[in-house]
Amino acid sequence: MWQLLQFPLCPFSRKVRLLLSEKGVGYEPVRESPWARRDEFLDLNPAGQTPVMVDVERGVTLIDSMAICEYFEETVDKAAMLNGTAADRAEIRRLVTWFDTHFFREITGPLLLERMEKRIVHRLPPDTRALRDAMKAAVEHLDYIDYLLDHRAWLGGATMSLADLAAAAQISVADYLGGIDWKTHTTAKRWYVGMKSRPSFRPLLAERMEGVAPPPDYEKLDL
Amino acid sequence: MWQLLQFPLCPFSRKVRLLLSEKGVGYEPVRESPWARRDEFLDLNPAGQTPVMVDVERGVTLIDSMAICEYFEETVDKAAMLNGTAADRAEIRRLVTWFDTHFFREITGPLLLERMEKRIVHRLPPDTRALRDAMKAAVEHLDYIDYLLDHRAWLGGATMSLADLAAAAQISVADYLGGIDWKTHTTAKRWYVGMKSRPSFRPLLAERMEGVAPPPDYEKLDL
Repeated sequence: MWQLLQFPLCPFSRKVRLLLSEKGVGYEPVRESPWARRDEFLDLNPAGQTPVMVDVERGVTLIDSMAICEYFEETVDKAAMLNGTAADRAEIRRLVTWFDTHFFREITGPLLLERMEKRIVHRLPPDTRALRDAMKAAVEHLDYIDYLLDHRAWLGGATMSLADLAAAAQISVADYLGGIDWKTHTTAKRWYVGMKSRPSFRPLLAERMEGVAPPPDYEKLDL
Repeated sequence: MWQLLQFPLCPFSRKVRLLLSEKGVGYEPVRESPWARRDEFLDLNPAGQTPVMVDVERGVTLIDSMAICEYFEETVDKAAMLNGTAADRAEIRRLVTWFDTHFFREITGPLLLERMEKRIVHRLPPDTRALRDAMKAAVEHLDYIDYLLDHRAWLGGATMSLADLAAAAQISVADYLGGIDWKTHTTAKRWYVGMKSRPSFRPLLAERMEGVAPPPDYEKLDL
């Protein structure tokens, strides 16, 4: 049985969990708080980040969310998430990096620091300027999602792919932390409600991070 | 014919160039300076980063160095760089992310800012404290490379892989910018001299960035 070391608001763990659920791979979630920098966790993963997956019986440890996704894409045929030609797959991988890197650095990362880590670890108030910058960046990213969906059925192309899972994972954490204003962005909103409606998504939406409450509409399907 | 948009000290472009050369894929290098934020380049790649590869005849654009490497790994059989079982491949991908993300953030990125961008763009002296921090981080990363090579023939496992190319690409740029002290780290040094000796590596070592000279030993094979 796979163990998945993660915490409820880790966007990279959410991407992996969505993939595992779509593919029907069972796992036991194990709580890990990377900010605690537990020695045993750092021995396992010197990068100090979630998610990490461990299968003790088979002696396999998987580290880095993209490496984990590629592993299950290679080993489980069901619900292929890197579809199409080599060029199509390159475009999907480009977008996964886009959301994992740029969206995280500009939006999810600052929101996690200001609204989660500062509250539960440092007992400090959030920096309102950093929050404002993150919310401004979120508007630009939703504009980009609108633009992509004006040209394609799904973010990465004609079918649902890892790009949709990566984007929805980041957005769901930003949304939990009050960083997304859904008033405009009709196209992005319709796509995100579709993602939220999937059986793979429901368990994530039901989870709560201790001491940090989501906004009232967080779980709703009629934004 | 593929065009590769890059600049001589881009570590991500170097990783791709090593892969293309090992695989025997021809390409025309096209100079792009991401810090100039050229409008046409940002239209091509909203992330504003090199490398980008374009094949005009086939109408294919590849963005993001890992997506580019996966593309050529999928389409060109020669010199496979993601070898072994799915778990072996996950370990190689973990290390590529390690060097692309952590080594770059702690070492290559700060060195490029302090010793290249500040000199040729901003006409400012480097921040000596930032340089010292980068060189200290480089020692830790070389320790980790020593550790890996104490347990394996190559960084990612039993054969040369994309992990070696990613690490050597980052190290070569850090070395060009005077950030690597080769005095200790015998094991890492032996591995790096082996990488430098490869025909794929020689053209990179012969290139110069205008206004930024490498240290005298940069090209030498007997460090």
